[in-house]
Amino acid sequence: MPATLFHNASIFTPLDAKAPLSGPRQGNVKNIPHGAMLVRDGVIAAVGDENEIFRLAADMRDAEVPETNNLGGGCVIPGFVDPHTHMCFARRRENEFRMRIAGADYLDILKAGGGILRSVKDVREASDEDLLRVTLENIQNACRSGTTSLEIKSGYGLNPADELSMLEIIAKAGALARIDVTATFMGAHAVPDEYKNKAEEYVDLVINEMLPAVAEQGIARYCDVFCEQGVFGREQCRRVLSSARDLGLGLKIHADEVHDLGGAKLAAEMRAVSAEHLLAADADGLLAMAAGGVLAVLLPATAYSLRKPYARGRDMINMNLPVALATDCNPGSCFCESMPFVFGLAVMNMGFTPEEALTASTLNAAYAVGDNARRGSLEPGKDADFLLLDGETPAAVAYHAGTNPVRRVYKRGRELVIDNPQPCMAAGGGHHAGGR
Amino acid sequence: MPATLFHNASIFTPLDAKAPLSGPRQGNVKNIPHGAMLVRDGVIAAVGDENEIFRLAADMRDAEVPETNNLGGGCVIPGFVDPHTHMCFARRRENEFRMRIAGADYLDILKAGGGILRSVKDVREASDEDLLRVTLENIQNACRSGTTSLEIKSGYGLNPADELSMLEIIAKAGALARIDVTATFMGAHAVPDEYKNKAEEYVDLVINEMLPAVAEQGIARYCDVFCEQGVFGREQCRRVLSSARDLGLGLKIHADEVHDLGGAKLAAEMRAVSAEHLLAADADGLLAMAAGGVLAVLLPATAYSLRKPYARGRDMINMNLPVALATDCNPGSCFCESMPFVFGLAVMNMGFTPEEALTASTLNAAYAVGDNARRGSLEPGKDADFLLLDGETPAAVAYHAGTNPVRRVYKRGRELVIDNPQPCMAAGGGHHAGGR
Repeated sequence: MPATLFHNASIFTPLDAKAPLSGPRQGNVKNIPHGAMLVRDGVIAAVGDENEIFRLAADMRDAEVPETNNLGGGCVIPGFVDPHTHMCFARRRENEFRMRIAGADYLDILKAGGGILRSVKDVREASDEDLLRVTLENIQNACRSGTTSLEIKSGYGLNPADELSMLEIIAKAGALARIDVTATFMGAHAVPDEYKNKAEEYVDLVINEMLPAVAEQGIARYCDVFCEQGVFGREQCRRVLSSARDLGLGLKIHADEVHDLGGAKLAAEMRAVSAEHLLAADADGLLAMAAGGVLAVLLPATAYSLRKPYARGRDMINMNLPVALATDCNPGSCFCESMPFVFGLAVMNMGFTPEEALTASTLNAAYAVGDNARRGSLEPGKDADFLLLDGETPAAVAYHAGTNPVRRVYKRGRELVIDNPQPCMAAGGGHHAGGR
Repeated sequence: MPATLFHNASIFTPLDAKAPLSGPRQGNVKNIPHGAMLVRDGVIAAVGDENEIFRLAADMRDAEVPETNNLGGGCVIPGFVDPHTHMCFARRRENEFRMRIAGADYLDILKAGGGILRSVKDVREASDEDLLRVTLENIQNACRSGTTSLEIKSGYGLNPADELSMLEIIAKAGALARIDVTATFMGAHAVPDEYKNKAEEYVDLVINEMLPAVAEQGIARYCDVFCEQGVFGREQCRRVLSSARDLGLGLKIHADEVHDLGGAKLAAEMRAVSAEHLLAADADGLLAMAAGGVLAVLLPATAYSLRKPYARGRDMINMNLPVALATDCNPGSCFCESMPFVFGLAVMNMGFTPEEALTASTLNAAYAVGDNARRGSLEPGKDADFLLLDGETPAAVAYHAGTNPVRRVYKRGRELVIDNPQPCMAAGGGHHAGGR
């Protein structure tokens, strides 16, 4: 495959001096106004001023002369990395959303059979084909708005067989979509019905059966736990994470989303790569994270969808905590695959500069999934994952409100073309087709 | 052209008993779970339960037998009507957005050559071709997210020749996009530089030269004015609107956006069809509107983009004021063409039910542009403008946050297919194409 020289682009990228970037460095984005990138075998061989890159290409031997691809003077940024999703699910929960906006509280929804356990039931009942189809559709929707790699958690299986099956389907879906998917094992996402009031026993199951199988099969890079009142307590989370660490998995925590259980501090203590949500985290917890080098993964679309105040992302950046952004895409609290929407919320409602939001949704997000050496910025040696934006600068993502600002998506130097989705089907599948 | 029978759809529509719908009637949306629509020459001939419509078709003579179109069990709603836009402009103002989110106030932006008068300069300098191209692109972006008819205001010309020219281009763009565009004359959008400190003289120009020409050429259905401190006072607005009314134009007012100048009351007094923005309107003004049958057109994406509190839409519905939603799409305060985004903001941040948001963005919006007899609901005799949504109910528009929930757009019974946009160009046009 010949090399490609992408040119006539205004390139914006964070620089990977020492990811994750924090404090003022988080907003330090480099612009190459008349930029070009030489891409060989999907990897950036050189990036810089157009004249310089063209000179470089002129010195190549004939067999190596690259094809050229004119980007029309457009704005180029790294592909978005979405480091926190639950987009492997079997069915949407639009009915639950309708109940919630009509004023139902979480207990009402649980009584009506909603909540995480609804999705567990759906996943356990679904065929592998259906689960794969929905997951792939969610991934493709994400790609359409510029996501070129993402993380997906298990956690709707909640027994050994279904958790492993979810992780296999996550890997398959990533391969079919031709983007990079990082799998996270989240057996400790909720206590399943069959372990009601026996959370400790369920934690034992996670530790003794699920984690060893996950580690043996090598199908998850991280282990995540939901540290929350009524879900798993701090000590239970510590047990799961310790076992996961011993088995060589990286660690993540859903921390302090509704109540401050000290999840942020636990993340620092366990040397987790990241703590997520953090709406209720106190300053002590955040400072412990900053001192421990733990990344904060913020999920503003979830706050939006649950009508909650946003996490204090501006304060976190000011206290030198590195911050990443993610969609949290899931069928319950936040059905959103759009990183541009999340980027816009961070700028408009959380006080991020566009440059900080860019680092948070590319380089720092890549760090959150252990991929910052390969992705998240446009630098030599990294994959040529990049977006052509409809606008002048990364600020266009927020300026063009509520739209998809991504004109073209390139994954390893090749344009990602996604077929249009099929016409939708109602929740229960189509009904009778009429009399004719 | 044969008739078409659309079937296997769950149809949701407000009913046009007496538009605009207000109070509890605004949330009164009819659902036909197993619905079908018979469409002849682009107009709905019959709509109802599938069995009933199929029976009707079975009784037709052979020559009249309709084609069938299976909508796959999907959710169908009327096409969105966007009743307030300024999307006829020559250039975006992303740089001004960057200044604003970095903390610049309106005066800073004016000093840097920004604001409405920047767009006036751009429109006056642009060729007709460029102005048409940008307008058409904006319309097409709107169509992609389900807008099937919309309003566009002039108001970046601010002299007789350029205002008329804008109105001509608005008509052309609508014809090219094959959707219905209502033109509104808004010569009183700002005081142009050449009339600085001579607002009264400019109002004379609007009244004596522009309005008669607009009326004579019949190229605008409405006249709108910007009633605001530092723009046009209430008496100046009253003069312009009185003249417009005498010439047979319908009336609209940008009222009480930043300061309460009594614009809402003026709208009631002048029997305007609608007053728009209304962030600062007091209860007296809103009650006067309700009593006078004036529709409130709310623009939540503008509040979002300017980081302002939303208009009190919930209170307005509660006080029996009919409410419509619009994008306000313009290059300065709100660059957004997406009615789904606006719909989502109304539900998530303003307390609308999905049904109220649906009426506000279809039937009541059609009333705002004088089109409710032809559009805005799915009833016999109306144009077959409808959307196939990716979801179960209209709530899907808010549930699937930050995305485009529209799978297919039908305009007068035909699918609207929009080519993908061309790669973007940087603001100043492309730069040098490199050395090769």
